[in-house]
Amino acid sequence: MSQPSYDVVPIGRVESPLTDKAAAPKQGREGSPEAWLVFEPAILEGLDGIAAGDEVILLTWLDRADRDVLRVHPRDDVNNPMRGVFGTRSADRPNPIGLHPIQIIEIDGNRVRVRDLEALDGTPIIDVKPVI
Amino acid sequence: MSQPSYDVVPIGRVESPLTDKAAAPKQGREGSPEAWLVFEPAILEGLDGIAAGDEVILLTWLDRADRDVLRVHPRDDVNNPMRGVFGTRSADRPNPIGLHPIQIIEIDGNRVRVRDLEALDGTPIIDVKPVI
Repeated sequence: MSQPSYDVVPIGRVESPLTDKAAAPKQGREGSPEAWLVFEPAILEGLDGIAAGDEVILLTWLDRADRDVLRVHPRDDVNNPMRGVFGTRSADRPNPIGLHPIQIIEIDGNRVRVRDLEALDGTPIIDVKPVI
Repeated sequence: MSQPSYDVVPIGRVESPLTDKAAAPKQGREGSPEAWLVFEPAILEGLDGIAAGDEVILLTWLDRADRDVLRVHPRDDVNNPMRGVFGTRSADRPNPIGLHPIQIIEIDGNRVRVRDLEALDGTPIIDVKPVI
């Protein structure tokens, strides 16, 4: 492509018992375990005002995704007709950004415990936003 | 930071009458005009299945943002106490990704007309997803 690219710098990492892409839940509220978000000390000031109980949207970089995929069977089910990735939540897509609605359970320094996160252990965190 | 970074490659650009950051609406449903999304021909297959009338979430790279900002007055109003950017929708943040809930009005080849988009003219598009 002729477009210039941009540098996404992780602001932290996910710590989760989920390590196997094939076995992980496809969405957060489909049986995801609790997880910890471990933030870089340099960006902690940016979390000022966020508290336990808050619902937020976590943005991750799905670093194990295949960026060359443009069409998938939704939910990896071959019975679902193939469609373009932009109409699906497939992790495989040109810019593999994950959007995760989560609830914050506990904040302990740069470690934040959350509910309902389907991201794999080690996944880079790239942003946190209020619920849309 | 010690983290490796990742390359975000735009999949298209916004065409909008909005060109002035200071004058633009802060959120899509605060008086935004219609805009066109102009996609790279190489990724068109990824839009397969998306149709006029659909509501989707557009992800953009807010290329005019200040990435060194960690605290802001919400909505640029000095009467609002400063807080961390991750609890706000500020464009200024370490990874300036915009999340825009929009409705598709019309699809014409690689050009998609949408409603309720506050992004500035020329803003890079990085992903399209179903509504959360």
